[in-house]
Amino acid sequence: MYRSHTCGELRASHINTEVTLSGWVQKVRDKGFMVWVDLRDRYGITQLIFDEERTPKAIMQQAEKLGREFVIQVTGTVIERASKNPNISTGDIEILVKELTILNEAKLPPFTIEDDTDGGDELRMKYRYLDIRRNPVKNSLVFRHKVAQEVRRYLSSEEFIEVETPYLIKSTPEGARDFVVPSRMNEGQFYALPQSPQTFKQLLMVGGMDKYFQIVKCFRDEDLRADRQPEFTQIDCEMAFVEQEDILNTFEGLTRHLLKEINGVDVAEFPRMTYDDAMRKYGNDKPDIRFGMEFGELNAVAQHKDFNVFNSAELVVGIAVPGGNSYSRKEIDKLIDWVKRPQVGALGMVYCRYNDDGSFKSSVDKFYNQDDLAKWAEATGAKAGDLICVLSGDKNKVRAQLSALRMELAERLGLRKSNEFAPLWVVDFPLLEWDEDTERYHAMHHPFTSPKPGQLELLNTNPGDVKANAYDLVLNGNEIGGGSIRIFDKDTQAIMFDHLGFTPEEAKAQFGFLMDAFEYGAPPHGGIAFGLDRLVAILGGQETIRDFIAFPKNNAGRDIMIDAPAPIDDEQLKELHLKVNMPS
Amino acid sequence: MYRSHTCGELRASHINTEVTLSGWVQKVRDKGFMVWVDLRDRYGITQLIFDEERTPKAIMQQAEKLGREFVIQVTGTVIERASKNPNISTGDIEILVKELTILNEAKLPPFTIEDDTDGGDELRMKYRYLDIRRNPVKNSLVFRHKVAQEVRRYLSSEEFIEVETPYLIKSTPEGARDFVVPSRMNEGQFYALPQSPQTFKQLLMVGGMDKYFQIVKCFRDEDLRADRQPEFTQIDCEMAFVEQEDILNTFEGLTRHLLKEINGVDVAEFPRMTYDDAMRKYGNDKPDIRFGMEFGELNAVAQHKDFNVFNSAELVVGIAVPGGNSYSRKEIDKLIDWVKRPQVGALGMVYCRYNDDGSFKSSVDKFYNQDDLAKWAEATGAKAGDLICVLSGDKNKVRAQLSALRMELAERLGLRKSNEFAPLWVVDFPLLEWDEDTERYHAMHHPFTSPKPGQLELLNTNPGDVKANAYDLVLNGNEIGGGSIRIFDKDTQAIMFDHLGFTPEEAKAQFGFLMDAFEYGAPPHGGIAFGLDRLVAILGGQETIRDFIAFPKNNAGRDIMIDAPAPIDDEQLKELHLKVNMPS
Repeated sequence: MYRSHTCGELRASHINTEVTLSGWVQKVRDKGFMVWVDLRDRYGITQLIFDEERTPKAIMQQAEKLGREFVIQVTGTVIERASKNPNISTGDIEILVKELTILNEAKLPPFTIEDDTDGGDELRMKYRYLDIRRNPVKNSLVFRHKVAQEVRRYLSSEEFIEVETPYLIKSTPEGARDFVVPSRMNEGQFYALPQSPQTFKQLLMVGGMDKYFQIVKCFRDEDLRADRQPEFTQIDCEMAFVEQEDILNTFEGLTRHLLKEINGVDVAEFPRMTYDDAMRKYGNDKPDIRFGMEFGELNAVAQHKDFNVFNSAELVVGIAVPGGNSYSRKEIDKLIDWVKRPQVGALGMVYCRYNDDGSFKSSVDKFYNQDDLAKWAEATGAKAGDLICVLSGDKNKVRAQLSALRMELAERLGLRKSNEFAPLWVVDFPLLEWDEDTERYHAMHHPFTSPKPGQLELLNTNPGDVKANAYDLVLNGNEIGGGSIRIFDKDTQAIMFDHLGFTPEEAKAQFGFLMDAFEYGAPPHGGIAFGLDRLVAILGGQETIRDFIAFPKNNAGRDIMIDAPAPIDDEQLKELHLKVNMPS
Repeated sequence: MYRSHTCGELRASHINTEVTLSGWVQKVRDKGFMVWVDLRDRYGITQLIFDEERTPKAIMQQAEKLGREFVIQVTGTVIERASKNPNISTGDIEILVKELTILNEAKLPPFTIEDDTDGGDELRMKYRYLDIRRNPVKNSLVFRHKVAQEVRRYLSSEEFIEVETPYLIKSTPEGARDFVVPSRMNEGQFYALPQSPQTFKQLLMVGGMDKYFQIVKCFRDEDLRADRQPEFTQIDCEMAFVEQEDILNTFEGLTRHLLKEINGVDVAEFPRMTYDDAMRKYGNDKPDIRFGMEFGELNAVAQHKDFNVFNSAELVVGIAVPGGNSYSRKEIDKLIDWVKRPQVGALGMVYCRYNDDGSFKSSVDKFYNQDDLAKWAEATGAKAGDLICVLSGDKNKVRAQLSALRMELAERLGLRKSNEFAPLWVVDFPLLEWDEDTERYHAMHHPFTSPKPGQLELLNTNPGDVKANAYDLVLNGNEIGGGSIRIFDKDTQAIMFDHLGFTPEEAKAQFGFLMDAFEYGAPPHGGIAFGLDRLVAILGGQETIRDFIAFPKNNAGRDIMIDAPAPIDDEQLKELHLKVNMPS
């Protein structure tokens, strides 16, 4: 038996008990006549004491040689601690050690195993097994476990069934790029790893499973941006005999349950906003509504003066920065530089100070009088002491730019509080979006999303205007879930494929099994999928997902700990009927 | 709103309530003046009634046109049923229909959606979404969900943390063949799909996670035997600071919990048996101990007579078949033919009848007298009325043959009762096993398994005799779980790799990260993995796993529903730097 208790368990009530503990040496303090060791395991830290007078000499000598991260087992007596440590749960006691076994020695770790480590990102990933010993990472993984357990508990109590769908499926050209898996037994053929279990969950609805969920790995072979992983985890859900309202209520229930159980937060009914409103008010389909700073459209009050920059713009739009009038001229210039960075891409920024005395001072005073500027203040909701920032240009671009500015300023102003939760349903997404590269419409959600009732005709005349039964759940400015009510009849599905540029033959080759299934009695159905990595990070009050993934890959898609991917044997390639065709 | 209730919910207490139901048409009985429809969903069946006198004429006409598996929505009043059906939960009531909407029509399904279907295996797999509508498959999937939930609930309550390990890892030549995934971003390199999360769970122990589990898909590119799948699900577990005894107790607890919660069965402490004993008594390392028929070794009593077949054999071994003396000569001849089938491979079988009067009649009476045969009876535990079956030859082969015969006879005798559960720990497995093909030793469990204390030296002299800290959990003749206490120091691990034929360079290239990890303070650890597909099937009283997998692949590794694997585009191949190299 390696231990009688864990390192997080002993209290004053255990005093005089003989105990055996095992763990890692966090710290050694050697005062010659006394040695203190902090012994660590997953559950906490317990102080060990070795003392010239009471500890056998051989053990004392061994203790003096202990290094950081040695794995040891000790037996001793729980005694009251002279100087108690109220910061740790075992702070009232220490162990007077009688026996010590070194279970394993340890080389000096390449970075400190402390909450604030001196290790950089790459080093921590290479020695991820050491990084996981640190509380921030360990606690994130335990937190993730708790969230996943609560998801399962809640959905099971709502009669959802977790069904495992296959990982070795079929490649489809639609959507992102697939990872593929060559088949040895079927020469020249490939499986694909699922980007999501979309078609399988729809088939489960056709199969009468009624309420399905799965916490499942998905795969996308995309060029990685920061904080994207080639493999990621979804909470994938689908329901039969439902309308949008049913889905929204069910998963509002799940999200509220998580906020309550995990964060101890009660949240009121989730507000809903159309996609069009979100774009108009926040320039973004996943607005952070923990704070205001709503967009004020200024075309009516800022155009038709002599300022040509505004006159020629499709959209003139501003926000009021709370207390922003305190910014110096230099700070405002820096802000203008910030919006002109290539990542944001604005050509410039007009600003207007709202002075405490009610007067205005703008960078375009030549063109606008005090009455004009008062209308800007009204449109943006500015109050005395605020700064109004105004951008102009192409509608879509300028909204994205002002949204970036809004988020940046909110961050600087401390308005994005990690312990505050503001969920929001964004509804009525467009069915299609125009893709500049391929010069055709793509499904904004996916090709199985149903258009709003009565809008099927509009597909032929104004495809970009067709709205879908599609919705996103947004939390604190992040899309944590998205879904739709699906098409469930073969004819509508065929029309959709046609509009997405599939020939009937291509549609049949790719999705024939789904269209076949729709002929055998498909029920109305819809669903949603949550990104678990992101959800967990946000509930944990963090912006980045990496610490919530046990073994993440770097931005080149590599696992630098195990050094994967890697070349494989010629023999393996031959068995798979493959040749590597390196670019010259 | 598509429904106010499900089809399994309404009772006599609901009579006179107006309800809306949705579901599939299971059956239509049309008597002209009345039409009855059985409406089905996941939760049950409810009878609908359309009646000339009380149902609007248009609805009545529509009802007459309903076909099997149409998806409909009805609104009506719950009324008392004239002839109650005690076999279904809703059998006291029926719905007098006022409104009927056909939500989707259905072509005639290719097989009947009944508990006993007329569909063959391939047809059912092609239309798996229809097969899932059938109770046997649907209930199996719901059952699987319940088992998985109970596993998670139990392990979480024991402080295990579910950690997701990566799917895109590194190929290793050890063990079974990997599925590989070409990397687009890392030219000419490949990920591998995990055969198990073995090294990652060990690294989690090095990382201090202490108690880990995961219900996880694993992948093996093996030539498929019946009832094997290229992707399968494991309950993967690992613990730190444990000895074998801790692991056995913990997972005996899990298994007992499942048998109690899922099957309502209380099982006594699990017996334990060494591998050597299991082979000697049952010829098998996963003996079914729901019944006796233990092997009796007969070398001492059957050799050194004039029967050369036995004299030249390494092992002469028999079993007593309860009541087998009732077999006719013809039946016994058939049994002899059975053991001579190539799948079993015996050259012949000697038998001995144990007559009710206490006398014996054997097929080798020329060589053995009544006293000799009485000793056979004693060794095999035969009683009057039994038949003793005796095989002889090479020890390992003859044990396997007699084990096959024992299982076959038990099946025929009805001794393998699906509602009886006999778990068994098999312990002290050999560390290594000789591989005839490669003419070297392989790790019987895996290369990280630790030898029994003090047996490391024996590796140099008698490697085949070294026993491991390895154990299997056997249930009703199936291995449902297996694991070991791991090596946790670099030196022992290096010795193991050496004995398995790895050069130090190869070991470093393949497992360098693990051996590195062992230098930074690895705790003693061990674990176990359960095959979930098999476990669920056995708890469900079934022999085959296929109905417990939502979308299984066939014996050629194909998903015949979605037609995968399939060729991919030249463009995709080019992006992956690959050429298909078809055998000519």
